[in-house]
Amino acid sequence: MITEPGNGTETRATVAQAVLSLTQIALAASDLASGITPTLEHLVCDTAAVGAAYFQASGDQALTYQVRAASGDMPSTPGMAAIAAHGLPADVPLMRALEATSQAMFFDDCHIASETQGFIDLGVASLAAAPVRRADGKLMGAFLMHTFDQHTWDDSEAALFSMVSGTIAALAGRLAAEEQMRAAQEASLRALGLALEARDGETLGHTDRVTSFAMQMAGRLRFTDAQVQALRWGAYLHDIGKIAIPDAVLLKPGKLTAEEWSVMQSHVTAGSSFATALEFLPSAALAVIAQHHERWEGGGYPWGMVGDEISLGARIFALCDVYDALTSDRPYKAAWSKEEALAEIQAQSGRHFDPELVPHFIEMARSLND
Amino acid sequence: MITEPGNGTETRATVAQAVLSLTQIALAASDLASGITPTLEHLVCDTAAVGAAYFQASGDQALTYQVRAASGDMPSTPGMAAIAAHGLPADVPLMRALEATSQAMFFDDCHIASETQGFIDLGVASLAAAPVRRADGKLMGAFLMHTFDQHTWDDSEAALFSMVSGTIAALAGRLAAEEQMRAAQEASLRALGLALEARDGETLGHTDRVTSFAMQMAGRLRFTDAQVQALRWGAYLHDIGKIAIPDAVLLKPGKLTAEEWSVMQSHVTAGSSFATALEFLPSAALAVIAQHHERWEGGGYPWGMVGDEISLGARIFALCDVYDALTSDRPYKAAWSKEEALAEIQAQSGRHFDPELVPHFIEMARSLND
Repeated sequence: MITEPGNGTETRATVAQAVLSLTQIALAASDLASGITPTLEHLVCDTAAVGAAYFQASGDQALTYQVRAASGDMPSTPGMAAIAAHGLPADVPLMRALEATSQAMFFDDCHIASETQGFIDLGVASLAAAPVRRADGKLMGAFLMHTFDQHTWDDSEAALFSMVSGTIAALAGRLAAEEQMRAAQEASLRALGLALEARDGETLGHTDRVTSFAMQMAGRLRFTDAQVQALRWGAYLHDIGKIAIPDAVLLKPGKLTAEEWSVMQSHVTAGSSFATALEFLPSAALAVIAQHHERWEGGGYPWGMVGDEISLGARIFALCDVYDALTSDRPYKAAWSKEEALAEIQAQSGRHFDPELVPHFIEMARSLND
Repeated sequence: MITEPGNGTETRATVAQAVLSLTQIALAASDLASGITPTLEHLVCDTAAVGAAYFQASGDQALTYQVRAASGDMPSTPGMAAIAAHGLPADVPLMRALEATSQAMFFDDCHIASETQGFIDLGVASLAAAPVRRADGKLMGAFLMHTFDQHTWDDSEAALFSMVSGTIAALAGRLAAEEQMRAAQEASLRALGLALEARDGETLGHTDRVTSFAMQMAGRLRFTDAQVQALRWGAYLHDIGKIAIPDAVLLKPGKLTAEEWSVMQSHVTAGSSFATALEFLPSAALAVIAQHHERWEGGGYPWGMVGDEISLGARIFALCDVYDALTSDRPYKAAWSKEEALAEIQAQSGRHFDPELVPHFIEMARSLND
């Protein structure tokens, strides 16, 4: 049973004001869930709906729609638990119906409509649903709001839901595209780090391992999102300057001569100058690249900085980098055991490493499964 | 003279409806100018303003605000021509006033208000202005609308302008952030290509030159934005597989042995497998990487594809890549002149290269200043 939304000019205009301010809130949000949640809350407040949710397809060929934001009471049936965990299958009658319409649909009685088949079993009595499409027209998500007791959706509820879903659909498309862009950016920077491993089989996996250690340290030290991102990007790119080091030095199995060692050390300044050309890199990421071979007590390279002259990110990263080198096979040495490596880290507390960070690192490393 | 926007509930609600639909249009837009222009057009239609424009700071420490979108009639005075060319200086009284307010400001008579000093000389009699802020509160732009004859802004004009500027300000912030993300993504992929040049001084500038040739071909062949992007990303990354080629082969000054040649050729499959891991790369970009050493008549590597089995992007790119190699110094040969290189390109029409593309390439190359 589909009810057309009301056309009362006055109602729609008043509703428009509310939707406009929700849109402004959503536009200022940093991510999809926090952008859409206030709108879902408004739906639950201003209509008979007891709960509202936004479902989005995961990936291009998605077979399910995952809950990305929700407000109010969701059904507590086993069926709903399965949807929360595994998503709403793309082939349920409701999603097929949404694929075929550009309008919001209103179902007063889920027993009757063929589109709402399955919802009664979830405990839902009345339902409203609206499609969310990408710029190319493909269905990418759906807004749903529901009641547990049978309800007849009225004109103002219909006007609100239609207008909200129109605006937020446009916004959800944008936010999803931004999420993809961010993921692509992340993948590109990681790829830049991984490119190096292609030359040097011995260090395969090094970039991902040190990044993972650094992320766990960032979590323990309660870094902000921006700090986490800078540390992660620095970790991806810390050795990018090694691209410029000749094979004869980079891959030499034996001990380096003094001259070769100075070529090898030049990877830090080469990497810094390469990374500086990436204008969008935050300075905290550049600092990881430029300072990850500095030592807490001095004597590191290239600057011989001391103590907290060295950026926090670089001090954290030095721990991750050395630990991974110790616990990996290298041409000149076999991998050390975790405890041997942690003993060495402890021995270097206050010498190579920041003594305040060492206990955190050791605790973090011990907590990892091998 | 600042007039407060009207508070007539009915007016505002009706205006909200118009602004909401403009917001939906703006949300669906692919870039800032096309997102904001319909709103500026609406302002010119629905108020006494004869022209409206959106100015945005260029960069973080911008000293000027550039016109990013405009509608209606702009002043035709020399002062306005200077603003169009060089931007609105950040230190004019109006921009300083906008820095200090979160509200839209309405000036009925630009002769009187100190904030509008300078605008009379531009030919502007009445002005409305609204600030656009980034998420962190910093002023990043301004909406302006103006009349050439003195006008008293009324309540409904003020309500429309205030609401529009509030919503579009939020959207402009988002679109500006997206522009930055796109630029960062572009810079990362180019950096991935450039990383290679760090190992091999002989090919310095090769990535940027072949990308520029490919972009000019794309323009001549009227590629869509998506096709242009795929070709550009393919151009950045075409030789990424050379990362895995040892110095002894990659940098060998003399002729390669058969075995070394087969190692060198492996850069195409290595590059393809590396690029395939970048899930966001469109298939047309992957095709450039995988097929840029194929030949129109067959006999290329790694697949020995023939004719238009080879993707259009790869056929275009092969021309760009070979031409740049011919006109550059290499360890084994001096640079050829432009005409020598183009004669070779012509000789290879229907052999190495697609005969339909060769005339376009030759015309393009001849049009370049050296």
